[in-house]
Amino acid sequence: MTRSRLTPEREGELFGAVLDLLREVGYDALTMDAIAARTRSSKATLYRQWGGKPELVAKALRELSPHNSSEVDTGSLRGDFHAMVCRGDDAEMARDTALLRGLFQAIHTHPDLHRALREQLVEPDSGELQTVVRRAVERGEIREDNPAKDFLPHMLLGVFFAREVVDVRPPDIEFLRQYVDAVVLPALEA
Amino acid sequence: MTRSRLTPEREGELFGAVLDLLREVGYDALTMDAIAARTRSSKATLYRQWGGKPELVAKALRELSPHNSSEVDTGSLRGDFHAMVCRGDDAEMARDTALLRGLFQAIHTHPDLHRALREQLVEPDSGELQTVVRRAVERGEIREDNPAKDFLPHMLLGVFFAREVVDVRPPDIEFLRQYVDAVVLPALEA
Repeated sequence: MTRSRLTPEREGELFGAVLDLLREVGYDALTMDAIAARTRSSKATLYRQWGGKPELVAKALRELSPHNSSEVDTGSLRGDFHAMVCRGDDAEMARDTALLRGLFQAIHTHPDLHRALREQLVEPDSGELQTVVRRAVERGEIREDNPAKDFLPHMLLGVFFAREVVDVRPPDIEFLRQYVDAVVLPALEA
Repeated sequence: MTRSRLTPEREGELFGAVLDLLREVGYDALTMDAIAARTRSSKATLYRQWGGKPELVAKALRELSPHNSSEVDTGSLRGDFHAMVCRGDDAEMARDTALLRGLFQAIHTHPDLHRALREQLVEPDSGELQTVVRRAVERGEIREDNPAKDFLPHMLLGVFFAREVVDVRPPDIEFLRQYVDAVVLPALEA
């Protein structure tokens, strides 16, 4: 990846604008021209910095994701999961769910987007989850060979989709806390 | 609901044609005209029998769903879940996942479809799951107050979406079996 020459503030603004546009028009209608216009950048700069639309979208989602768990270390598995879930607020979670919904459709017609999202979001998130889980194994909270560990990304991502279909609303923090306590922790600690 | 005057064979053919069209063109582009033409029916008959497009689509999905668990009763919770998961085959599961994907997008712009799917699919499936779970409670396999019971629809539906995003493929039967054993059963039996 090219090293960024933008200030972190400027980069944050730019990523925010990308996600705003993504929510407004969806992935298919999102153009590098529109991003350049909205952020008063040149398209050349955008391409040089990020390579293309899928990479820029994935990076924006990555930077603004409330699920970044690298700094979570509360001393217990339950504490760590609750801290990860409680990043952001209910409104933010509803906005994230709307993004996910649009992207879920787009990844089937855009393999480059799928690849960028996997590299920027799914794999790092899995890595961070593994860190949280590894510490729990070291503390003796989880058995080393517990098979639910491999399904952690599925458990935590699937619930966003299922909540919408089953309950006709995005998940809120209280719902996710209950889900973590009722499903994720018992499966991991079995 | 109007009582059907079609033979079960004719009804099955008709539902199959509706799902074929749904996979081919998606929900938005699916018309009652196209269904009438494909099935050599009159539109008046279709409307009289099913009320409209959302109801007909929901009913077709319901009738052809491999997840109908009403006849499953193996004597153990694990046996019941494995039997439910093993209805159909991997190819069928891939086709169902493709349908789910298109419908997930459509339910947000078509509340009438969402309502019909809830009435025809989500609620009956939940009811049947509750029957399987109630028998497990009676056998002493699950505690009456186990909180994971309320998340069963989320656990079983979410994994279809998550599998696609995380692993870039629809779930197959072996994956679902492992998920049931590693996540669903331990959470329920905690």
